[in-house]
This record gives sequence, C-alpha cells and structure tokens, in this order.
Amino acid sequence: MKRAVILLSGGLDSSTTLAIAKNSGFKLFGLTFRYGQRHKFEIISAQKIAQAYNLADHKITEIDLRTFGGSALTDDLDVPKDRNNGTMNKSIPITYVPARNTIFLSFALAWAEVLGANDIFLGVNSMDYSGYPDCRPEYIQSFTSMANLATKAVVEGKQSIKIQTPLINMTKKEIIKKGLKLGVDYSLTHSCYDPENDGISCGRCDACQIRLRGFQEAGIKDPIKYCNPS
Amino acid sequence: MKRAVILLSGGLDSSTTLAIAKNSGFKLFGLTFRYGQRHKFEIISAQKIAQAYNLADHKITEIDLRTFGGSALTDDLDVPKDRNNGTMNKSIPITYVPARNTIFLSFALAWAEVLGANDIFLGVNSMDYSGYPDCRPEYIQSFTSMANLATKAVVEGKQSIKIQTPLINMTKKEIIKKGLKLGVDYSLTHSCYDPENDGISCGRCDACQIRLRGFQEAGIKDPIKYCNPS
Repeated sequence: MKRAVILLSGGLDSSTTLAIAKNSGFKLFGLTFRYGQRHKFEIISAQKIAQAYNLADHKITEIDLRTFGGSALTDDLDVPKDRNNGTMNKSIPITYVPARNTIFLSFALAWAEVLGANDIFLGVNSMDYSGYPDCRPEYIQSFTSMANLATKAVVEGKQSIKIQTPLINMTKKEIIKKGLKLGVDYSLTHSCYDPENDGISCGRCDACQIRLRGFQEAGIKDPIKYCNPS
Repeated sequence: MKRAVILLSGGLDSSTTLAIAKNSGFKLFGLTFRYGQRHKFEIISAQKIAQAYNLADHKITEIDLRTFGGSALTDDLDVPKDRNNGTMNKSIPITYVPARNTIFLSFALAWAEVLGANDIFLGVNSMDYSGYPDCRPEYIQSFTSMANLATKAVVEGKQSIKIQTPLINMTKKEIIKKGLKLGVDYSLTHSCYDPENDGISCGRCDACQIRLRGFQEAGIKDPIKYCNPS
C-alpha cells in the first residue's frame, strides 16, 4: 500500500481531500499544526476526522507562528466579517498567515522522506477561496520542483515528490458534492476563523461565508451549528 | 537601512555569513532553531554571536524535528567519526536531517515577509561540506523561485525574495580567511555534531574534520578546544 502524508486542518477541504486520498488506496499519515491559531477548535475537528478515517498515524506538531505575527489568525486582530459582497477575491485579507503553506509543506516533506512516501496531499483550492498566494497552482508546481531537489531520498533516486491537490480546480459546491459521495461526515469539520463562541461557527467570516455558499449551491444543509443562522 | 533575516546556527559558516551581511550594510534579524538537535551547544554559540554583532533581533524558534526522526543529529544514533579519508563527499551521511534547510528557510520567509525584508542570508556551502542536498546551488535557486510565488507581499509587488548564500562556492579555507579579515571571533563558534563532552568539540565528526582541515589549510590555529587534539 502506497504511503502518503496528508495535511489535515480539520476543515471541509482537507477532510474531503482525505476521503479522496483514502479512496485512491493510500495508507495515510495525517499532519496537523498547533501553530498559534486562535481558532483552535479546528484541531479538535482534525482529531475527530483522523479517528473516523483510522489513519496510520496522526501527528499534531507544535510551531509558534505568533513569534512572527502578521495575521488575524494568530494575532489579536479582528477577523473580518461580512466581506462576501463580491469583493472576496480582489484583495488578500488579513487572515493570510505569512508563508503558512510553505512551512506546512516543508514539515510534510520531512515526514514523507522518513516514511518513504512520494505523495503529500493538500486541500488547497483556487476557485472559492480567500485569494491566498500559497493556494495557487503555480505556487504548488514551484514547491514540487523545489522539493524534488531538497531531500536525500530524491538525490539517491528513492523518492519523487508529488503534491496532490485534488480540489485545486473545484468549486466549493463541487467539493461538497464529491465529499458527500465519498461519505464525508461534514458535521465533524470546522471552518470558522472566529476564536470566540466556544467553537460554534460565526457564519460571517470568509471561511464561514464561502462554506455556507457552497452548501447552498449544492442544495444541502450544512450540518454544523452557526451563531447567526441565515 | 535594508533589513535581512539571517539563519544563525552558531557554526563557522553562519557566523562568517553574518559578518559578510553586516559588512554589506544590512540591518540583521537572526533566526536560530532549537529543533531537537543533540549538539545543543551550538545554540549557546548562536546567542554569543548574535550578541557580539548586536543584531536588531534574535529569535530562537522551537520546532521538534525529533517527531519525524531520520537523523543522527536528532535521534539516538552514533554520529559518524573519522570519515575524512577521501570518501566524505561520496555519500550523504546519517547526520543529514530530513528537509532541514527547507523548513528553516520557510520560517525565515515568514519572518522576512512580516519585517518587509527581501533578503535571507544562509551560510550553505557546496565545496567543503557533507554532501547535503539542501546546500546545493540548484536547490537554493529553486527555493528562491518558489518563495517568489509564496507570499502576499510578493504577489502585491512589495517583496522580491533573494536567498543570499555568499559562501556557496568558497572552500573552508577561503571562508575562514574571509571571516578573519572581517574580524569574526571564531572562538565563539561551535561546529561539532557530537552531543557528548560538555560542548568540547570531538575533532572526529565530519563537522570537526572539515573545520580543522580548513584552519590547517588557512595556516591558522583553530581557537576552540578539542577533546582529541591532533
């Protein structure tokens, strides 16, 4: 059975990616980061999903990105609300975390080398998303090129890294439909950026609004609870 | 004054790189990792050097690469000794740490973005070295391409990342001569991989042997202490 590392945030996209990877026959090793995110409820979701899918291993790695700051997800800045008025993709919001996917993928690369895995699954999406630079196909391609020069196993011809991003060209509606077809239990997932409300989703941040619109377009009710039901 | 992040291990190469960067007029922000290395004496050296050069800031970031394993620098494996018989560059030794420079550079990239810095200094060297894949010029070029797609500041035209590797094509002898010219106090530095001997260098691991040969070829006595003086 081929091994793969999967970056698992506990959100809708990474959970769907996990279901796709499992369905493709990979033996999966989940990697989640406690990076100083204020919306730490997502880590609990990641644990539930890892358990539901009976992963070969699930590591929760501590890295403190608060040291550098620069994001509303780690610093004491207000998470923007109600931006969903057509402007969403025009500017990169302050929920962007500097170099986050580069850091996450670098750790995944280290683990992949130790495991003898060629594949790293990442649930990025460049259709219905917040415009983050490290979710774009050209970024993923460039990381892949770099990774294929970076490790001992690659140099010795024992590894050839592929960053698998099955959702990258899908809309949120398509992702949800795909996930439901594969049996993803979206009630276990957490997307909201808001650190308040005891883990009940706000319904108003970018992450909630993109998610809610996806369920609406798919014609399905989102199974998670919201503070501000529409 | 232009800002730059410098990766500072406490060794001979990163200290010389620091002197070169300082001499080029950069305002420097040092980044050191407590990554689970058993030869943790190098962190004390990094602190001494940061202080000697009066860095604008010096962060010691905790990341636990022992989680993944795969290296004699983090795991309970013997550090190879006395390999310096002409075979040194023929195989990558078990002191290689999976994806280490990729992880270090990713954190440096995050900090550079927050600081508004374009430059990241890294003391890699592809002449007198242990054959690590992530010290080669082609790897550095590829990381640079990736970095220039990865950040918000890059996408917004506010940042253009350069990975500065002034030592990459120098021999150890040349590095030492350059450093001495710039006034580097090599007595503050630590190169040895051996976790034993209370921080006194073993003189027999790759790092010690490359260093000792460099000083010998430069015709200068290495100012640090060794357990096994030759």
